[in-house]
Amino acid sequence: MKETIYLDYAATTPLDHRVIDEMHQVLKEDYGNPSSIHASGRKAKMIVEKSRKIIANYLKASIGDIFFTSGATESCHTIMHSSIESLGIERIISSSVEHHCTLHTLDQLNSKHPSLEIILLPPAKNGAINLIELGAELKKGEGKTLVSLIHGNNELGSINDLKSIGNLCKEHGALFMVDSAQTFGKYPIKVNEYKIDFLTASAHKLFGPKGTGLLFVNSETMIKPTFLGGSQERNMRAGTENVHGIAGFAEATRIAVLEMDERIEKLWKIKSYAIEALSQLSDVKFNGSIMKEDSCGHILSVSFPDSPKSDLIVFNLDIAGICASSGSACSSGVEKDSHVLEAINHDPKRKTIRFSFSHNTKISEIDFLVETLKSIL
Amino acid sequence: MKETIYLDYAATTPLDHRVIDEMHQVLKEDYGNPSSIHASGRKAKMIVEKSRKIIANYLKASIGDIFFTSGATESCHTIMHSSIESLGIERIISSSVEHHCTLHTLDQLNSKHPSLEIILLPPAKNGAINLIELGAELKKGEGKTLVSLIHGNNELGSINDLKSIGNLCKEHGALFMVDSAQTFGKYPIKVNEYKIDFLTASAHKLFGPKGTGLLFVNSETMIKPTFLGGSQERNMRAGTENVHGIAGFAEATRIAVLEMDERIEKLWKIKSYAIEALSQLSDVKFNGSIMKEDSCGHILSVSFPDSPKSDLIVFNLDIAGICASSGSACSSGVEKDSHVLEAINHDPKRKTIRFSFSHNTKISEIDFLVETLKSIL
Repeated sequence: MKETIYLDYAATTPLDHRVIDEMHQVLKEDYGNPSSIHASGRKAKMIVEKSRKIIANYLKASIGDIFFTSGATESCHTIMHSSIESLGIERIISSSVEHHCTLHTLDQLNSKHPSLEIILLPPAKNGAINLIELGAELKKGEGKTLVSLIHGNNELGSINDLKSIGNLCKEHGALFMVDSAQTFGKYPIKVNEYKIDFLTASAHKLFGPKGTGLLFVNSETMIKPTFLGGSQERNMRAGTENVHGIAGFAEATRIAVLEMDERIEKLWKIKSYAIEALSQLSDVKFNGSIMKEDSCGHILSVSFPDSPKSDLIVFNLDIAGICASSGSACSSGVEKDSHVLEAINHDPKRKTIRFSFSHNTKISEIDFLVETLKSIL
Repeated sequence: MKETIYLDYAATTPLDHRVIDEMHQVLKEDYGNPSSIHASGRKAKMIVEKSRKIIANYLKASIGDIFFTSGATESCHTIMHSSIESLGIERIISSSVEHHCTLHTLDQLNSKHPSLEIILLPPAKNGAINLIELGAELKKGEGKTLVSLIHGNNELGSINDLKSIGNLCKEHGALFMVDSAQTFGKYPIKVNEYKIDFLTASAHKLFGPKGTGLLFVNSETMIKPTFLGGSQERNMRAGTENVHGIAGFAEATRIAVLEMDERIEKLWKIKSYAIEALSQLSDVKFNGSIMKEDSCGHILSVSFPDSPKSDLIVFNLDIAGICASSGSACSSGVEKDSHVLEAINHDPKRKTIRFSFSHNTKISEIDFLVETLKSIL
């Protein structure tokens, strides 16, 4: 059987075997409902609270500011809707290269709250936010403002400077929300030091399980829940807790923190090697930044020249056993440039493929990729 | 070590070992993102679609009307909010013995939509809805109406007659929403025959995983999603699918359907035995119906006489290794009669405990329970 070469780690990741073991254990032994006050419930509750502590420690957050959800999409929905309804946000500044989760939720808010002002800043050439433009925009408005930005861009890998943005937001009295789906557990994120008010993440991008996510809410800016019906998550999220998922998320985070430096180093070895190897191909360009200072080690957005063959690169790679993506997984199959590529003025005649790596990606896999691309093109 | 006797299956259930095996397999092998178009994504997609078919077959529903969510709470939120916003519902008829998930969401809607009319019918003596009262209420109003009722009451076990209610709703042009959290997979539910428009359920009440739920939406009354950001679940629920959870839910349903008759029989053997054994205790009463026609086999709500000792029954049972609940798990620890008990005029001086069983509950466990209760009281 042909071996699969998985180069789509930004879409989702295989689970770490230690995460699977932890989840398997909880599935077998700890079936209690954390809301039950008897022994079986208390044991489940303990797992959830231990997990919360692991996540809080990584983020340098208060334990009470960590809430578990079904994923970053749910967390994003809760923050955006509730910040308008609970906190009176009148203006949201975001960017044109956010995940659809942010952009479509903004559209939803726009139709529900016609007076809400929504500003989408264009990205700088590297794909990140331009701090001067953000500062100018913050200065302009009068209304209570939320700044919502992605940390590591899911298509380009470009990294926003959270610390500088957080300082700018505080300077202008704006709240700061971060989509950390691509960077959670991959880089240090210190919510207090970076003055972050809200943060979202999903476990399945970090070798953890699908269906479990994170909502960080700074207790000074507490919002209202989306779901009602039980006092779970200290009244922030009704519904029986996904105990095995939460345990898996925490275990994935624990391992990620432990191996963070080593993983970053391995990823940059792979990414640098891939950049060099792919540069051998004719007229290949890289979208966004490819520098360590402002791009993620696990994402490489590669632009191929216009040719009848380049249209089918993803399909032909798939036939060769290589999993890669033409953009975000959430928009797969769409045959035009994504909103992110449009925002960075990518030539629509060229074809972009996102390759994404993990610390387990091998040099030989990159070699096979380049050989396969040579034969496809 | 003391063995735990679990009599709180209405709060949550241990996972069936076949469900754990299925989930373990998916966690290990099928990590792809169902939205990815490459081999790894297609394999994950196939698991989700196979699961959808199993759920649809059980409900005698169209496959396209089945959507996976994070649980019944999310499903309830989506239906209630969206039926007002997408379908122009002006009036909701429900009952005073619904789960807090329904009642608190109605409160939320009430404050958001002041013109919405909300009617909470009191239950009949058996804990179920009074069909004549429901019919009268349906006749009264003019506005577009949603009837939202629980199938099997989570505290009392009383069963609403879905077929008759569905017919009444159609007769008066009302939409019909069913909370089947306690009955999904335990009884036949035929959504088309019963004229159900919306149905919610959670896998973890059926020996499946926590964190996975069901939203059934009759395609003729299609509503808008809560979460946006991706085209997952045919644009009904954005966010990467919880593939292992969905696979576990489907496996739990497959087994439940296969063993349904056998489980019902076993449950009624246990419930009948428990009723007889508990009746030996002085002045014990049963809340709601205890008849097979209109109560669930797995729930028995027992009312104990007022005494200093009865206040601590749940705690003392816990010390003896028996897990039971004073009401719904979502409201555990609250030291007063629940809204459900109040609605059936339960004497607040008496103490009610909910015992809930599974097909694996043993006669010897009931014997131990009764002996323990004797020594507590």
